[in-house]
Amino acid sequence: MKIGVKVMPRKEVLDTQGRAVESTLRQNGKQLNACQVGRYVVLDLPGEDEAKAMASAKDMAEFVLHNPLIETYELERL
Amino acid sequence: MKIGVKVMPRKEVLDTQGRAVESTLRQNGKQLNACQVGRYVVLDLPGEDEAKAMASAKDMAEFVLHNPLIETYELERL
Repeated sequence: MKIGVKVMPRKEVLDTQGRAVESTLRQNGKQLNACQVGRYVVLDLPGEDEAKAMASAKDMAEFVLHNPLIETYELERL
Repeated sequence: MKIGVKVMPRKEVLDTQGRAVESTLRQNGKQLNACQVGRYVVLDLPGEDEAKAMASAKDMAEFVLHNPLIETYELERL
């Protein structure tokens, strides 16, 4: 079962990648209000039990996929 | 209007980040079949017209957010 983990920088943290992309887009005449850049991790987990896979993905996300000081994460079933 | 752009490495390309995460998780006793790591960009675009915002996000994704040689992207409305 595939689970997606979306990891985004917290609002309070300076998102340097987002700023860079935003200014590049603006300099090239694109119109946008804001832009954030984060990571997306696709986990392919064994088994077909959704609750179990979600619990396992949450465990991995908290263990190594995100840094809680500067990032938040969301899980979604794919 | 917020549009999410999910940029993932193509299957044929060696996903070094994904491999690293996969082996770290395995070494720590987590069970998984595979893992891919990509980027997630949230674009906050002016206007409320969804079709227009999607077209504009597609334009930005093709222009600067993804490298078509090694990555594919998907758009989603947030």
